[in-house]
Amino acid sequence: MLEYLRRGDDIYRQSFAIIRAEANLTRIPADLEKLAVRVAHACGMPDIIDGLMFSLGAGEAGRAALAAGAAILCDCRMVAEGVTRARLPAANRVVCTLNDPSVPDLARQMDTTRSAAALELWRPQLAGAVVAIGNAPTSLFHLLTMLDAGAPRPALILGFPVGYVGAAESKQELADDSRGVPFVAVRGRRGGSAMAAAALNALATEDE
Amino acid sequence: MLEYLRRGDDIYRQSFAIIRAEANLTRIPADLEKLAVRVAHACGMPDIIDGLMFSLGAGEAGRAALAAGAAILCDCRMVAEGVTRARLPAANRVVCTLNDPSVPDLARQMDTTRSAAALELWRPQLAGAVVAIGNAPTSLFHLLTMLDAGAPRPALILGFPVGYVGAAESKQELADDSRGVPFVAVRGRRGGSAMAAAALNALATEDE
Repeated sequence: MLEYLRRGDDIYRQSFAIIRAEANLTRIPADLEKLAVRVAHACGMPDIIDGLMFSLGAGEAGRAALAAGAAILCDCRMVAEGVTRARLPAANRVVCTLNDPSVPDLARQMDTTRSAAALELWRPQLAGAVVAIGNAPTSLFHLLTMLDAGAPRPALILGFPVGYVGAAESKQELADDSRGVPFVAVRGRRGGSAMAAAALNALATEDE
Repeated sequence: MLEYLRRGDDIYRQSFAIIRAEANLTRIPADLEKLAVRVAHACGMPDIIDGLMFSLGAGEAGRAALAAGAAILCDCRMVAEGVTRARLPAANRVVCTLNDPSVPDLARQMDTTRSAAALELWRPQLAGAVVAIGNAPTSLFHLLTMLDAGAPRPALILGFPVGYVGAAESKQELADDSRGVPFVAVRGRRGGSAMAAAALNALATEDE
């Protein structure tokens, strides 16, 4: 008989305790403490917290937007699936336009990735939304380009694209100049849909 | 104007080239080379390959099963969403039973997590299936317990649960005694749905 911890609540509690014991949270503002812990929970790496970049007040901005019913705009289906619906404070809409039938043609016309082109369909709901990018660097780059061209501002950008080409660069561009939008991101190549969803889930409710 | 690589094919090609330049693949058998690279691609960490554990022939076993139409059994919705349907060789079914309405009651009866209880619903399709676990250590522990009690054997177990409580232990148990089932897993706390889906996607077709 295999012996292991079987109760979900106990597993969560013990996991969060391990993260808080191992991680260095001194640099993290109070309104992002639970977000930082939850991102570390999603990836199994407490040191991911050392790479968090953020604007002051980003946590409060995200909480307020979600409480007010902000739409959650996700760059990929995995992020959308990772958002825990029961945690959302206002039955917020969770939107992913990547698989919209118009996107492949749009990507060809724009000579970019489908992940970037899909953001064009966000425009009507971008104002005040919470953006969660957990996959594609080109999504984050294109969002910044849209903002430069005058697109409506979201309430918060959670920037967690992952990978070897453009991930570090797009997140650094966000951190260097977030175009006036509050943001949380993780430095470097690491990131992913689980981290992006975890960041969103942490802001959705104070419950751990 | 932000300058960045915009063509999906170019981004993939450059990413895989960077991984192959940086990672140590000498230990990886030929039938798992693309899987190893794709797992590293999913997480932005070439050194994840150093932690891969596997049985000899696991790659071939997985490819053969998928080509023969094996069902793909996922422990969570994020893994199921990460499976690229266009890569599947036999329009394989992608199954996730976690949100089945019977699961919460079953978990209470079994005094375990929903992630573990959900595997009870896999039984009719477990024989010859490809299992992809990308979230819950309790899912992997429960699968091994089911196999110990005589459950039908899957063709392959992709073991990528993540986290601080049981993840390292469940994967080590799989590696120490996979109950005769071919397997690929990643040592330690790291893992996740993106890695599990990437491993599956790598076995589904030779295309990169």
